[in-house]
Amino acid sequence: MNSTEDLDYPQIIVQYSNGFLISKVMFTACELGVFDLLLESGKPLSSGAIAAHLGANAIGMERLLDACVGLKLLTVEMTQEGALYRNTEISNIYLTKSSPKSQYHIMMYYSNTVYLCWQYLADAVREGRNQYERAFGISSKDPFGAMYRSDEEMLKFMAGQNSVWSICGRDVLAAFDLSPFTQIYDLGGGGGALARECVSLYPNSTVTIYDLPKVVQVAKEQFVSPEEHQITFHEGDFFNDPIPEAELYILSKILHDWDDDKCKQLLAKVYKACKPGGGVLLVESLLNEDKSGPVETQLYSMNMLVQTEGKERTAAEYSKLLEAAGFGVIQVKRTGKLYDAVLGRK
Amino acid sequence: MNSTEDLDYPQIIVQYSNGFLISKVMFTACELGVFDLLLESGKPLSSGAIAAHLGANAIGMERLLDACVGLKLLTVEMTQEGALYRNTEISNIYLTKSSPKSQYHIMMYYSNTVYLCWQYLADAVREGRNQYERAFGISSKDPFGAMYRSDEEMLKFMAGQNSVWSICGRDVLAAFDLSPFTQIYDLGGGGGALARECVSLYPNSTVTIYDLPKVVQVAKEQFVSPEEHQITFHEGDFFNDPIPEAELYILSKILHDWDDDKCKQLLAKVYKACKPGGGVLLVESLLNEDKSGPVETQLYSMNMLVQTEGKERTAAEYSKLLEAAGFGVIQVKRTGKLYDAVLGRK
Repeated sequence: MNSTEDLDYPQIIVQYSNGFLISKVMFTACELGVFDLLLESGKPLSSGAIAAHLGANAIGMERLLDACVGLKLLTVEMTQEGALYRNTEISNIYLTKSSPKSQYHIMMYYSNTVYLCWQYLADAVREGRNQYERAFGISSKDPFGAMYRSDEEMLKFMAGQNSVWSICGRDVLAAFDLSPFTQIYDLGGGGGALARECVSLYPNSTVTIYDLPKVVQVAKEQFVSPEEHQITFHEGDFFNDPIPEAELYILSKILHDWDDDKCKQLLAKVYKACKPGGGVLLVESLLNEDKSGPVETQLYSMNMLVQTEGKERTAAEYSKLLEAAGFGVIQVKRTGKLYDAVLGRK
Repeated sequence: MNSTEDLDYPQIIVQYSNGFLISKVMFTACELGVFDLLLESGKPLSSGAIAAHLGANAIGMERLLDACVGLKLLTVEMTQEGALYRNTEISNIYLTKSSPKSQYHIMMYYSNTVYLCWQYLADAVREGRNQYERAFGISSKDPFGAMYRSDEEMLKFMAGQNSVWSICGRDVLAAFDLSPFTQIYDLGGGGGALARECVSLYPNSTVTIYDLPKVVQVAKEQFVSPEEHQITFHEGDFFNDPIPEAELYILSKILHDWDDDKCKQLLAKVYKACKPGGGVLLVESLLNEDKSGPVETQLYSMNMLVQTEGKERTAAEYSKLLEAAGFGVIQVKRTGKLYDAVLGRK
């Protein structure tokens, strides 16, 4: 960015203004199955063929495809039979449903849930609280009651989180050598993608996913096969029910949902349950201490305002919470991707 | 962008996903008056002071300000009294209400109208039509009836368009030497910002804003002062009422609202009214002929699907429409900014 140019013409402001248009074009192409169809077809297709296959309007589809070309999610070739579209490599890997690294489900969660909540961002800032009531007409007192307001919403959320771990899971688990810990609890482990990465990276480990009974039920039905012997389940509410003894507890995107008091309460409980010599691994997106960024984490902290009771924190803030609970030898590792890792030892 | 890196970790996908968060953070900081307050105060302020001044929640406001720092719309300094925020130069110029180049009003239109319509982008693509009915419960048969559904909405739209011309108006009017034309009609000239640029750039010209009676009334009351003698008004519906004779007709972001048939109908009427030797200036965002972009214009063409009966077009498509109406000597000038210019002569 040339700042003199920017003062004459606000390129950055135009780009920020168009942000939601860009998000929605990508989300919608995913939702309508454009990338899946182009992967399956194995050859470039015309907008008419794509529209017909997907039951969409031909004019609307052509415009969507053209915008995807501008975003480099598709390429177009002008041929004698007209314009033919195909996926870019990045779309094949990340935007098709069937890819192991598919981000499809998190996109659908963003597009159909988060986008709606963010309509009320000004209200969230005025009131300092989440916006489930305005967005969905449901009480905002219990964020997970609201997030899991239907089996469908819960499934979308779990599938979305699994998408995230398919691209960020390995880095956060490889941030520290966790091989000394064989008996691991993943508190709020949901759909199990992080647990799967864990047993793959640490073949001697077993991971128990501790989550609400209805979450565990869906995880067993939809996400984790009974053949995955190293992954087991424990049904419970970790705020109100006992936490069993283990060597390592993973709290991945858990603390960011809650205020400091609730975090301290949970960490104290984990400390008490933890075997001596064991530890706790926090997986979170870390803010810089000097408020300079990263901008993604600052945006996610706003999302915590809009959707939860929590916030994103700095490494120092997480260290303080861990220390207050009794943990020591705290190590912080930034991965350079969206999620980082903090390890505390008992 | 390093494409190998991108295949390992989809930076671009993350960035596109976060687009709507970025838009909404900027829009919301504008809406709550953050940039105005920081301009007026003349000194950096704490988040607490800003929240108190603007009647917002302190925690919510701090997070909004921090996200604005990450977006380089604010800077933060860590002092003994805590974090103090100030506007960046670009925010002073473009995001404060009082600045001559303020984009405040177009942001509010985007945030509170366009954002809502785009919630239904998938439906727009499936059905090939605008989404006023889903978004606002109003018939989509008459787009301007829908867009001007209340005086408040009409005012927001007019003010928004004026914002656009405050940064793009001069370039499109300077694209060609229009000094030979002194008697100019601006069809659908709305709030008059483009007319104002025109009489400033061409001091011998008079510009008549031809628009719907209720638009003209608001333009006179809110946007154009009676002292601006070179700007006059004509009330009418240019599809159904006569168009008076003139030397030059400006159609700025008019044709993109309508399908080819309506465009031809309007241009034929303009051609008939036009003095011999006169011309028509189309101001539009031009698509590349090979579907490669510009991506902003491709996104706007999607917006035309979501909000109107029209689309963005290539220079060749506009030339064809002009030729069909009888215009010749067609010249095209790209400005490098959002809006370009096409001149046809009678």
